[in-house]
Amino acid sequence: SLSLPKATVTQAIRQVVLCKDRNGKCGLRLHSVDSGVFVCYVAANSPGALAGLRFGDQILEINNVTVAGMTMDKCHDILKKAPANNITMAVRDRPFERNVTLHKDSLGHVGFQFKNGKIIALVVDSSAARNGLLTDHQILEINTINVVGMKDKEISKIIDESPSVVNITIIPYGIYERMINKMSSSLFKELDRTPAA
Amino acid sequence: SLSLPKATVTQAIRQVVLCKDRNGKCGLRLHSVDSGVFVCYVAANSPGALAGLRFGDQILEINNVTVAGMTMDKCHDILKKAPANNITMAVRDRPFERNVTLHKDSLGHVGFQFKNGKIIALVVDSSAARNGLLTDHQILEINTINVVGMKDKEISKIIDESPSVVNITIIPYGIYERMINKMSSSLFKELDRTPAA
Repeated sequence: SLSLPKATVTQAIRQVVLCKDRNGKCGLRLHSVDSGVFVCYVAANSPGALAGLRFGDQILEINNVTVAGMTMDKCHDILKKAPANNITMAVRDRPFERNVTLHKDSLGHVGFQFKNGKIIALVVDSSAARNGLLTDHQILEINTINVVGMKDKEISKIIDESPSVVNITIIPYGIYERMINKMSSSLFKELDRTPAA
Repeated sequence: SLSLPKATVTQAIRQVVLCKDRNGKCGLRLHSVDSGVFVCYVAANSPGALAGLRFGDQILEINNVTVAGMTMDKCHDILKKAPANNITMAVRDRPFERNVTLHKDSLGHVGFQFKNGKIIALVVDSSAARNGLLTDHQILEINTINVVGMKDKEISKIIDESPSVVNITIIPYGIYERMINKMSSSLFKELDRTPAA
């Protein structure tokens, strides 16, 4: 467990360029947490998804305007009023997330229990325990596939079908709860769930 | 703000080897949060400080025993009973922390207010706002100097005396609060506050 593959949360700042789709949409919902603006929803096949935006990304600037301290309504308004092409964003890669790399044992288990996507228990001496997975954390991705709002059965299926190395992206539950607290659960069905390239 | 220096929180897993001091101490206090075991105190000039352990490091193993799910008392007991030499630990580099790099403006300001070491407001269009610093986060380090439990006046002095690039290490306040909730405030005086090499 001392030589793990590189995690995919880098916390670097990157620039993203978006164009609206034919309906004038970017396919994003933003949410304000601790005076920061975060991506809490990316629609499947939307401009946001094509630009590689993911749940938990922190938006620092839209078209060179700093968005810190703005409400989500204000940010949505900026996007709405932006011209259709060349919307630029400065994005910090998911500051609250992190990756833990687990290895299946001979029975195919990685060693944790979850309920509604939240990790609730670790199996003693399992890969999850050895690698420092934490309870009271929400699972956001498995092998870069977004599982936000998925049923536990579907999440289990993704883990079962994973190769023996399982990459899990987690976020402290308290922060997750604040990010999704104004999201309609019907949106979960239209989430972008494509894995990273 | 798009080409920041590399942050110093890596979240990598590393191995640490400790020897007890002449009093049989490692100079560490550990605390259990979300079934994980975290360093919440490192005494100045102690074996823990010499080994480079810092507030928020997650201890995964002590002498090849996985500590996930253990209470802090159990972990302290393991350390107490360990032989004086060659105590090995597998450590995940501060999973809840992150670094934000700020630049002073012409007045020497980086653009945030804090109280009892907690960030409470961002100045509009300041370096802090542009770089995505967040409120409701506790300042742990400034330029790798531990400021946990320091008076606000002393923290301000460190910022004032910093070169124009100021590296700030922060942690969500809710998690910070849980990590220090059994710590006597008298311990703050004996904290290791040496900057990273």
